[in-house]
Amino acid sequence: MLKKAHPAMFGIVFFLMFAMLGQLLAQQTLEDVKQARGLDDNDVLAAVKTFMPRGGRDEYFAFVGTGNSGTMIVYGIPSMRIYKYVGVFSPEPWQGYGYDDESMLMLKKGSLDDRIYNYGDMRYPALSETNGEYNGKYLFYSDGANSRIAMLGLDDFETKQVLPHPLFVNCFPGVAVTENTEYVIQSSQYPAPWENKTADPEKEFDSKFKSGVTFWKFLDPKEATRSGHHIGRMIKEESFTLELPPFTLDYFDTGREGSKNFVVGLASKDGKNFIYVIDYSKIQNKVTSRFNEANIVSTKAAVDAKGLAMIELPEAARKVKVTPDGKYFITASDNAMVFDFDKVASALSNGTFSGKTAGDIPLIDAASVMKGKVNIGKDVMDLAFDYRDGVVYASAFSDKKIVRWNYNDMKTEGEVSLTFKPGQLMTPQGMSAAPHSNYLVAVDKEGLYDHYPNVGPVRPSFQHLIDISSDNMRDIYTMSLPQANIYGSVSVLRTTIKPIIRYALGTNTRTGEISDFKTVAGQEKVERQGNRVHVFGTLIRSHITPEIVEVNEGDVVTFHLTNLERAEDETHGFTINTYGKHGSFEPGKTASLTFVADRAGAFPYYCTEFCSALHLEMEGILLVKPKNWKGKVEKEVALTKEELAKYKQDYEKKVKVIKETGDVINGVVKFLKENDYAKYPYVKALVEDAFDQLEKGKFAKENYEKYAKEGKWKDAFLWAEQYWQYQVKAADVGLRAKTLLEEKLQGGK
Amino acid sequence: MLKKAHPAMFGIVFFLMFAMLGQLLAQQTLEDVKQARGLDDNDVLAAVKTFMPRGGRDEYFAFVGTGNSGTMIVYGIPSMRIYKYVGVFSPEPWQGYGYDDESMLMLKKGSLDDRIYNYGDMRYPALSETNGEYNGKYLFYSDGANSRIAMLGLDDFETKQVLPHPLFVNCFPGVAVTENTEYVIQSSQYPAPWENKTADPEKEFDSKFKSGVTFWKFLDPKEATRSGHHIGRMIKEESFTLELPPFTLDYFDTGREGSKNFVVGLASKDGKNFIYVIDYSKIQNKVTSRFNEANIVSTKAAVDAKGLAMIELPEAARKVKVTPDGKYFITASDNAMVFDFDKVASALSNGTFSGKTAGDIPLIDAASVMKGKVNIGKDVMDLAFDYRDGVVYASAFSDKKIVRWNYNDMKTEGEVSLTFKPGQLMTPQGMSAAPHSNYLVAVDKEGLYDHYPNVGPVRPSFQHLIDISSDNMRDIYTMSLPQANIYGSVSVLRTTIKPIIRYALGTNTRTGEISDFKTVAGQEKVERQGNRVHVFGTLIRSHITPEIVEVNEGDVVTFHLTNLERAEDETHGFTINTYGKHGSFEPGKTASLTFVADRAGAFPYYCTEFCSALHLEMEGILLVKPKNWKGKVEKEVALTKEELAKYKQDYEKKVKVIKETGDVINGVVKFLKENDYAKYPYVKALVEDAFDQLEKGKFAKENYEKYAKEGKWKDAFLWAEQYWQYQVKAADVGLRAKTLLEEKLQGGK
Repeated sequence: MLKKAHPAMFGIVFFLMFAMLGQLLAQQTLEDVKQARGLDDNDVLAAVKTFMPRGGRDEYFAFVGTGNSGTMIVYGIPSMRIYKYVGVFSPEPWQGYGYDDESMLMLKKGSLDDRIYNYGDMRYPALSETNGEYNGKYLFYSDGANSRIAMLGLDDFETKQVLPHPLFVNCFPGVAVTENTEYVIQSSQYPAPWENKTADPEKEFDSKFKSGVTFWKFLDPKEATRSGHHIGRMIKEESFTLELPPFTLDYFDTGREGSKNFVVGLASKDGKNFIYVIDYSKIQNKVTSRFNEANIVSTKAAVDAKGLAMIELPEAARKVKVTPDGKYFITASDNAMVFDFDKVASALSNGTFSGKTAGDIPLIDAASVMKGKVNIGKDVMDLAFDYRDGVVYASAFSDKKIVRWNYNDMKTEGEVSLTFKPGQLMTPQGMSAAPHSNYLVAVDKEGLYDHYPNVGPVRPSFQHLIDISSDNMRDIYTMSLPQANIYGSVSVLRTTIKPIIRYALGTNTRTGEISDFKTVAGQEKVERQGNRVHVFGTLIRSHITPEIVEVNEGDVVTFHLTNLERAEDETHGFTINTYGKHGSFEPGKTASLTFVADRAGAFPYYCTEFCSALHLEMEGILLVKPKNWKGKVEKEVALTKEELAKYKQDYEKKVKVIKETGDVINGVVKFLKENDYAKYPYVKALVEDAFDQLEKGKFAKENYEKYAKEGKWKDAFLWAEQYWQYQVKAADVGLRAKTLLEEKLQGGK
Repeated sequence: MLKKAHPAMFGIVFFLMFAMLGQLLAQQTLEDVKQARGLDDNDVLAAVKTFMPRGGRDEYFAFVGTGNSGTMIVYGIPSMRIYKYVGVFSPEPWQGYGYDDESMLMLKKGSLDDRIYNYGDMRYPALSETNGEYNGKYLFYSDGANSRIAMLGLDDFETKQVLPHPLFVNCFPGVAVTENTEYVIQSSQYPAPWENKTADPEKEFDSKFKSGVTFWKFLDPKEATRSGHHIGRMIKEESFTLELPPFTLDYFDTGREGSKNFVVGLASKDGKNFIYVIDYSKIQNKVTSRFNEANIVSTKAAVDAKGLAMIELPEAARKVKVTPDGKYFITASDNAMVFDFDKVASALSNGTFSGKTAGDIPLIDAASVMKGKVNIGKDVMDLAFDYRDGVVYASAFSDKKIVRWNYNDMKTEGEVSLTFKPGQLMTPQGMSAAPHSNYLVAVDKEGLYDHYPNVGPVRPSFQHLIDISSDNMRDIYTMSLPQANIYGSVSVLRTTIKPIIRYALGTNTRTGEISDFKTVAGQEKVERQGNRVHVFGTLIRSHITPEIVEVNEGDVVTFHLTNLERAEDETHGFTINTYGKHGSFEPGKTASLTFVADRAGAFPYYCTEFCSALHLEMEGILLVKPKNWKGKVEKEVALTKEELAKYKQDYEKKVKVIKETGDVINGVVKFLKENDYAKYPYVKALVEDAFDQLEKGKFAKENYEKYAKEGKWKDAFLWAEQYWQYQVKAADVGLRAKTLLEEKLQGGK
């Protein structure tokens, strides 16, 4: 123990210790730091290419599924900092997803039989598109484990819809959308019986096990009112499923432009590998049966309509992806095969087939529709496209390299050798008609501890950022993704997404509609009908109203809470101690928490998000009274003369403080007006928020003045206190606006 | 749409587009990148101080609670990369925490009344200590929302124990440990009734609402066998709670060396602020009553034993922290107050009091025990210590600055102005007897969108890494922490923690004991007693055994699965489609999944973690047979002559492949031996794994040779296939070992 050593000894040891610990950083020149940390010139370049200075913004948002946790991760490129985990197929406590009634109802609608699923298997997401380009509005995910599909809104990065698949017990954990997001496509993965649910996997596989591809009809906001929704929705009634023989299905992609009606995907059966080709325009009106309210198109009907064929592959592939221009589709296989969409379409419409496979599905001869093949390497895992005409990247897992090649001239253009085995690849915007050409993200499929810190038997996933902007491609950053088993991801230019900062007051964020339970300041109340209790409450710095709620043991209680804040980043959490209820309330949101008050006692409830310096004051008590409890004396006790005098004194003090705070506000307003604050949108928004707060406080001001006139000093003091709360909030927001404006005027970023 | 433009136009737009997108990165000199990305020299220095080159290791692990999600985050310093989210108070799907029977049982023990809690409120963790220094073994958390305490083992970063508080309905969400982790200390936060559970918060507050401080007895491994455990445990029977009048309690800390028997914490009541001082050595044997199996020490008993007093503070404080040498405790308040522990201890033992407060608790006069105070700034939020004698940092929220000062000479030494409002502070090892002096982490309590990318109404938390290694303190990295509401964190030198890579085969990871359900290769079986079915299965690349499980509708089924892998990072996931069951199986782990087979059908089960190139083959089918189902024909059909001949052919082919694979293995073994592989621990571990795999395959080899002799070609082929699987795994691991050894020989890091 150092601290028990002789003082002089201590000094020496301390010096050595500090010298050792401090040396890495005490160096203040670039050369010193390079030497101390063992960095070379390439490390320095990599560092400055990914470092995000204070206030800097990433160029891209990237979205990646977690594999089996049912959650989506949002991160930035090139900083590779993680911004959000969003609950999709699983409840997520931090945002109260699956905890409040509204999101719980949404998740329950995601189950055919009210089974509660608390995990998922989500791998390949798709972003909504307009004319093949990302429009930044929605994102879709398939749950391979529990056969669900989900839609997220990117205006607030929240899950808006989860639907159970009416037929499949197993889905491929990926989706794709058509060129204008008319359909969201989901397929089965492992074959399983549908209607005749039990079948012998050994004897009845071919006769009773099935596969399928589902086209979920998607209506965007302007159309969605057809079904009464204000935000985009998948509509089961207008969706359909193509039934297939028991192929194991894998990755698929959609066409663009000339190939926009096509879906191509991987299929395998009895050791043979295929690409299925579907022309959905030919089969969408060929529904042959219905089961579980699902529209089914039989294999035969699709074949008869010239909407379905297969291509047998000479070797297995792990992916098939459509080129940005929609002219080709390419397999991720050791010899990457480039297929010509025009030729495939002709063969299908002309009936130029070479034979048949299971289910009498016609086969198109691979050689007849193939532009050519290029040898990439061993165990090719994935492909990604570049903006440059014909440029494509392929990852060769066992060769530890990524190859850049061109599908126009079928030649390799370069490669980057890696220190890891690369898996899935992603280029920003790479799955749209307009990929970008600066970065490539590659998943490390074998992250040995020799390269990473040891954090126990289960480790995070790792992926690498590769600079592809020049001929000298280089691995520049290793990113750690906790709670993720990375398969695929998508990325979009950050500025394409326009997230909101707050909701319209009283919004049910799952439907986008104003909640029936919206409650505004001053209208908080508790309503009872028999043993059913509704609490209409509000949250605003620094009060939860009401502050005491009394119910009887056995009551069914709902807290309907509205966050009244208009300021930025003013989320309040809400929890009732040991009652297992929790919610997250973003500015403007209304949500409800229902529970049975099955345990008597006094249970504090409080805000679980740091919301201001007065955060700890956001507290109240739920009193659950056992039968025949006599503790509570209901009637108000009259104040003594001394008490009244004390309240008067407190009131006068508070009015003085209100005056002073008002002066501060006026000073800020003067500064803002003199400096044309309205020219700066962010500043303007803050100022509007500030006035909003003041406006909301008006009723409190009227009340305290009224009660003061009547000599009711307790009420006068309490309302003055209330008004001051609004005033403080207004001042707080106003001062933020002033600071920001000052920064703008000084030319800050 | 670019792609519909005239080709020439396209070329121009493409050029502009590419020029814009690529310019940031195409630059290959430091100066070019600096200019393109708008970085200055300080940014470059910051970048190289935090950049982690491929294979580099962070100096520290940091642990931070998420606030209300019930999950712990592990990240590295200085890279600020997040390595892990660990489920503590909430189920966590990615690791199957709260999903398998073992962890579900552990979480259920964390509830007094079988209520399932799926969130928590965890803020200030504590690491286990030996002589006041971190020993890297355990970590503790308090759940403020649902009154629980948890212990994590740092050998595998898993939660090992969750206990409900027997008295409090509300806890302060922080813990502290005594100098040798004899006790883990937890307190209440908001007062609430205990025994007499319902009480009127307005009329009966002082008479029936209570607070308390609990000392949870902790037994470390060598002692833990006293209660039959193999890993550390908190023992309720030997724990005790000091009952206090209804003070609102807040942050507390424990003494060291001379002050090792003391706990000091913040308390407030009726607008007055106090520090409570407890000498636990005086009260641990003064139990006055028991309730709910909890030992209670009354306030009076503690006062009589000279084990409890309070100090009234002249101003409110947000923290109280004990100095590394244990001589002082200091308040985080606008005027930081330094109290002398010796003087406080003397006052307490001599009864030198200035009065009394609620519950007749004696008051020690603040001035008489205060060394002095130093003005820091406005709204001081937290303190952190440096290794240098007397050095302490304080964050002034409203002043946007962190002040370095010295509690020896009570002088400020410097400050760093920030662009954000700093909250909690953390120095690596800062809460132990041996803080380090290179980094300071400060939480950004007000992350406006003007400084960060907008990701919707709910944003992540942000914290900053500040270089404190020189007089020129500087904010060098902004870290984003998703799903976190950051309050406090602790950090330890990475090398202090020695995580394991795999478990002993068949380990129940929650108890550390070998599971009764451990299953080894070849002993997989299905046992039935009435409608209770136990499946004893194994997981190993690339098979789930058994591959078909048949049960009857209504059976209660348990899958007991053991991951047989010995290789590094070979976790297998397991899920049964749409049956809502999911688990994560690290190498060596045995866990159980129990469910009612309440829906007939055929349900694929599969591995949800990418485990090898043959990952997709880890699949099987659960057949749930409805009553009277006749589909399945049980008896084996004899093979035809042709089939037999085909199997013989397949067998011979496989034996040839086995020979070739064997040659590869022998070549690798030769290389390894010639190059003294055993000198390199990591390489050695891999080689042992490889031999382990081969050894395991022996029975398969014996079987295929036996069946071949008997002319049973189907069985011979299947066993040969099985043996080859083991061989491939051995070769795979062996090749990894060879690669690693080559790197070592070439002097790689």
